[in-house]
Amino acid sequence: MSRLSLNQWTTKRWSVAEAVEGCVRHGVEAIGLWRQDVARQGLEQSAKLVRDAGLRVSSLCRGGFLTSGGAEALDDNRRAIDEAAALEAGCLVMVVGGLPGVVPDEPLGSGDRGVDRDLAGARERVAEALAELAPYAGERGVRLALEPLHPMYCADRAVLSTLEQALDLAEPYPSEQVGVVVDTFHVWWDPHVLAQIARAGDRIASYQVCDFLHPIPANALLGRGVMGDGVIDFTSLTGAVTAAGYTGDVEVEIFNADVWATDPDEVLARVKARFGELIGL
Amino acid sequence: MSRLSLNQWTTKRWSVAEAVEGCVRHGVEAIGLWRQDVARQGLEQSAKLVRDAGLRVSSLCRGGFLTSGGAEALDDNRRAIDEAAALEAGCLVMVVGGLPGVVPDEPLGSGDRGVDRDLAGARERVAEALAELAPYAGERGVRLALEPLHPMYCADRAVLSTLEQALDLAEPYPSEQVGVVVDTFHVWWDPHVLAQIARAGDRIASYQVCDFLHPIPANALLGRGVMGDGVIDFTSLTGAVTAAGYTGDVEVEIFNADVWATDPDEVLARVKARFGELIGL
Repeated sequence: MSRLSLNQWTTKRWSVAEAVEGCVRHGVEAIGLWRQDVARQGLEQSAKLVRDAGLRVSSLCRGGFLTSGGAEALDDNRRAIDEAAALEAGCLVMVVGGLPGVVPDEPLGSGDRGVDRDLAGARERVAEALAELAPYAGERGVRLALEPLHPMYCADRAVLSTLEQALDLAEPYPSEQVGVVVDTFHVWWDPHVLAQIARAGDRIASYQVCDFLHPIPANALLGRGVMGDGVIDFTSLTGAVTAAGYTGDVEVEIFNADVWATDPDEVLARVKARFGELIGL
Repeated sequence: MSRLSLNQWTTKRWSVAEAVEGCVRHGVEAIGLWRQDVARQGLEQSAKLVRDAGLRVSSLCRGGFLTSGGAEALDDNRRAIDEAAALEAGCLVMVVGGLPGVVPDEPLGSGDRGVDRDLAGARERVAEALAELAPYAGERGVRLALEPLHPMYCADRAVLSTLEQALDLAEPYPSEQVGVVVDTFHVWWDPHVLAQIARAGDRIASYQVCDFLHPIPANALLGRGVMGDGVIDFTSLTGAVTAAGYTGDVEVEIFNADVWATDPDEVLARVKARFGELIGL
């Protein structure tokens, strides 16, 4: 029995219904869903589809973008928590947001937004927002999963750049309320990653795998590759996650223009083969 | 009296002779040189040009690329040390190299090179090579300056990703023999950067400034911008470097296609203005 989970954006052109069918067709037992696609399919119908197919929902992507403060972001995160509860997702992945005024894929200064360069302040606002959201999640049985992102996304997507930071943020809360994501792409370079995975222990809410491509493509967000196509040593990372006691699903999440242009069934077959070969869980 | 130093690759089309003239014309008192350009100009002539112009050579770029091991890399680094001595450079910048088999700007697997994914092993080889090179540098009065590079260059250019790592590596050696580079572009995201700058103290061999652009351009190496054009808060970093006791030159090093396409005199004028406004040293 494999612990492989298909993150839906690996087969991005598939709807929730198609991805669920794809998982069943390929014998994949778990799926990671995205809020946008769930909304398109309908929340109730998405929940029914995965339930009827007997799939586990390993994660819902994603809450977060909390660094600019304000009630609107908190409200949206409460809705995300409610959706994760309805889907019985293993966790809600939290991408905490970048510097206020920096928008992914948009040049600086566009739309008359000024950049707030106070990185320490942005990081503090994440902690403050977490204090609001963690109890709300706890009441609904949803686990927030703080995801440190590769430092190249610090400005626009996540001021949370290391597993150590994520664990420091999570520490005040019960581990079933706030965990962390270990995503090989984001953490492989970190000199402290193995020690921090050991420290994480039962805080590991999600283990996500994909490779780090070289060279980084023109759109730096799409530098994720199928395991084996890049520079990451999966043996040490997977070994550390296993030694830390993690027994949950292992999500394959690949943002990649070539992968997205390929027939999703072919992608899923290749992912399964490489998963067996390089992850082996 | 300004501590601004022009790193020669900010005005990349200028030869050593032209860059020296440019510095004199704009009242810039120090210059950072590159080995390739020095070789083209001639080592002796380059040394004479800067000496006659009364310029300080804040750094020579660069030694390093030590992760694949082998005598050839050590020999080349010894030559770089000799060149730094001849130029009376403040330090020799060390970009330590990435994973063996990963070549900057070349797709993986090209040229029949296999990738060695053992990151910890590559990091150990840097420490071993340093043990060979530090005494050699010390005998010639050259200071090696270990440069942590942004983690997005971990695979191809530097397995040294944080200031903490660089300081750990430098620790066994006298600080006049092995120091570190603090380059705003590479370290701004690091949650520990201010503490590590304080720890560095007189290990700081070079303070380099440029901005981190958003979005990251198609060639990720060229994401360096003129101060003020990106997302970095220079106040906190410059304040920390000053508080650590650094009184040396401050090099502006910008790899950027638009900057390189601009008349170098215009670039230098803009750099001077922004340096005054945002660095103020």
